[in-house]
Amino acid sequence: MRKKKCIMVIGDGLGDRPVELLQGKTPLEVAKKPVINMLSLNGMTGLVHPYKPGIRVGTDVGHLCIFGYEPEKVYSGRGPIEAFSAGIELKADDVAFRANFATVSEDLTVIDRRTGRIREGTRLLAESLNGIEIDDCKIFVKELTEHRAAVVIRGEGLSDMVTDTDPGTAHEGEKVKRPLPTENTLEAEKTARVLWKFLMRAHEILKIHPVNVERQKNGLFPANFIITRGAGKLKKIEKITDIFKVKAACIAGDETILGIGKMCGFDVFTSNKFTGSFDTDYKGKALMALQKINEGYDFVVVHVKATDLAGHDNIPFKKVEVIENIETIFSLLYSNIDRLNTYLCLTADHTTPCSVRDHTCDPVPVFIWGSDVRKDGIQEFGEEYIKSGSLSGYTAKDVFYTLMDFMGYTEKYGA
Amino acid sequence: MRKKKCIMVIGDGLGDRPVELLQGKTPLEVAKKPVINMLSLNGMTGLVHPYKPGIRVGTDVGHLCIFGYEPEKVYSGRGPIEAFSAGIELKADDVAFRANFATVSEDLTVIDRRTGRIREGTRLLAESLNGIEIDDCKIFVKELTEHRAAVVIRGEGLSDMVTDTDPGTAHEGEKVKRPLPTENTLEAEKTARVLWKFLMRAHEILKIHPVNVERQKNGLFPANFIITRGAGKLKKIEKITDIFKVKAACIAGDETILGIGKMCGFDVFTSNKFTGSFDTDYKGKALMALQKINEGYDFVVVHVKATDLAGHDNIPFKKVEVIENIETIFSLLYSNIDRLNTYLCLTADHTTPCSVRDHTCDPVPVFIWGSDVRKDGIQEFGEEYIKSGSLSGYTAKDVFYTLMDFMGYTEKYGA
Repeated sequence: MRKKKCIMVIGDGLGDRPVELLQGKTPLEVAKKPVINMLSLNGMTGLVHPYKPGIRVGTDVGHLCIFGYEPEKVYSGRGPIEAFSAGIELKADDVAFRANFATVSEDLTVIDRRTGRIREGTRLLAESLNGIEIDDCKIFVKELTEHRAAVVIRGEGLSDMVTDTDPGTAHEGEKVKRPLPTENTLEAEKTARVLWKFLMRAHEILKIHPVNVERQKNGLFPANFIITRGAGKLKKIEKITDIFKVKAACIAGDETILGIGKMCGFDVFTSNKFTGSFDTDYKGKALMALQKINEGYDFVVVHVKATDLAGHDNIPFKKVEVIENIETIFSLLYSNIDRLNTYLCLTADHTTPCSVRDHTCDPVPVFIWGSDVRKDGIQEFGEEYIKSGSLSGYTAKDVFYTLMDFMGYTEKYGA
Repeated sequence: MRKKKCIMVIGDGLGDRPVELLQGKTPLEVAKKPVINMLSLNGMTGLVHPYKPGIRVGTDVGHLCIFGYEPEKVYSGRGPIEAFSAGIELKADDVAFRANFATVSEDLTVIDRRTGRIREGTRLLAESLNGIEIDDCKIFVKELTEHRAAVVIRGEGLSDMVTDTDPGTAHEGEKVKRPLPTENTLEAEKTARVLWKFLMRAHEILKIHPVNVERQKNGLFPANFIITRGAGKLKKIEKITDIFKVKAACIAGDETILGIGKMCGFDVFTSNKFTGSFDTDYKGKALMALQKINEGYDFVVVHVKATDLAGHDNIPFKKVEVIENIETIFSLLYSNIDRLNTYLCLTADHTTPCSVRDHTCDPVPVFIWGSDVRKDGIQEFGEEYIKSGSLSGYTAKDVFYTLMDFMGYTEKYGA
């Protein structure tokens, strides 16, 4: 069977619900998107479950599903993904955490979980904590985008069954939570103890760090604490490039997505113009995707984060605008691909309805276009119109396997 | 609950994708089929996954799914099915292979994997090999349709974890592959060794066999080698006739289908006019189905192979023709059944799009008609039109269970 190629665009949190400000339409339904409509008219469409009906997922799990994985087999918390993003190579017994540089008061009340989305100086702050030894363990800290960081504890007999120290968005103004074991084992108890000792030591170092002294001089909150969540250990994850012998590239601005991409076997590509926000370079992403296809990649993923941000911030008009930028991506792709041998797909990791300002379980809008696929004949690509499309009821994993099959990379089950 | 009957027609590889030569329609959409359209208008329709979304299956696995099985529980390669077809009763430790009589050169290069689809003399060739003893094992060989045969190794401590000796269609012109163990066990190692010794012995016998001497005199390739693939051991398969207490008949020309039917508990029926090809006796199959219903069978399956052949050979017009012959079958069935007490169903084991010339994961078109079923009201039976039918998203197993339930053969879960 001849091999074909595919470019998949992921609109993070793309799906939505009817929005009053948009006369009861969704941002996707309102957006001007003639190319996307044409592609879905001549392709397969549907509302797809990221994981399972009724289950809402995070960005990490949503992407693992899009890439064909069963998260219960490969996912053990966000920590390991952040460590991957940060370039920390995890060993089997390490426990990894997703972390924020935060601002706390003297009694450890959390004043700002994100230190005003601090952008400068986090590398120096992380370096001042990296390599600290507590008891028989060593702790690694690496900064990520803005206030984010990865924290890894390495040592004998550790467990990821410990609670978050981050009180969470809804609980700002509360104190940092002391980590507790969530199972009655020596390992969990030890991990919680070492983590707390480390956070206290880090607090002492950060309080007097020159970066923070300077910030306070300028009237800015100091990044004087590390709060942690999403403890996890490494799970063995077979690369999709090994499973399907496909050459895969992931183009994104968001570091978490690049980390997930790396974990799954993608070669990852970014640019300083890909911001993971509204001001990202959409055209640049499309051109890079075309370039990767021409360089011999078979499966190229383009990630757009801003649809999710607009949902979280409840700015439906902004979400419409981002979708119209995704339209620009497809317009560029469609004009430049080898149409007989390339599939195009739009999907999402989850729905982030503006009205909810958080991820929900609503299935996500998907189309697959290709010169030889069945045509659902649906006139416009929107949540309401595509519900009877042939992909409705599929899971994101099903869509991925379907694409791999269309591209000619699957083995027949049986003979 | 009163019991009802059902006749199911299986169009092997029936599903397709839009075909350019057919103005972007599928063969099913183009075919003239007023009775099928009327039945689907008054019944339930949909695009059904043979096994799971995104997974393409072989004919064997596809049929096991149609008959309600989970292939991961009952399927271990094609070998045991071919042995069943050939009437070799497998014991628990036997290893069975699907085999071809092939033509090789002196250095074992495969010149013709099918010895020109040899039809004459294979019984004598098989007999000359049947019963050979190698080490402490005994080998059984039985001819099947054309160049096909079943090979079974019987002995202590054997394993089906051995590679194919058949280089495959894409590799004609390469040498016969020496079988290798695919797991590091004494059993796999022994099986590979015994198989190879047998193939060498068989080669010596076949080279000078009178059938081959005669063929060569007539300028035909000699069937001087046996190539094997699809090693498998017997898995316990509970008969559907035991699971549902239904009397079941399977009507087919293709011996593999008859073998699967037997494995699953069907009484199997054929005729020398049922060829498993384009020239099969469609009317004869319909009449035999009606006869079996009248003889007291509850569930009668009619298999048509030629839809698949037309897909593999990329002859869309021929596929249209075969579907119009399936229409003839339904016309005869509908005119002669007891309509109040008989369901009619059309399904397929997988999609074989003409454009791909191989099985794909695309879900297959299905209808269930009966005097009392819900009506989807879909005007025409075609891949595009039925995508929103009530069976869309079902698996073939779901359809089978639905039929058994409609017929009155299921137990209530709970009370």
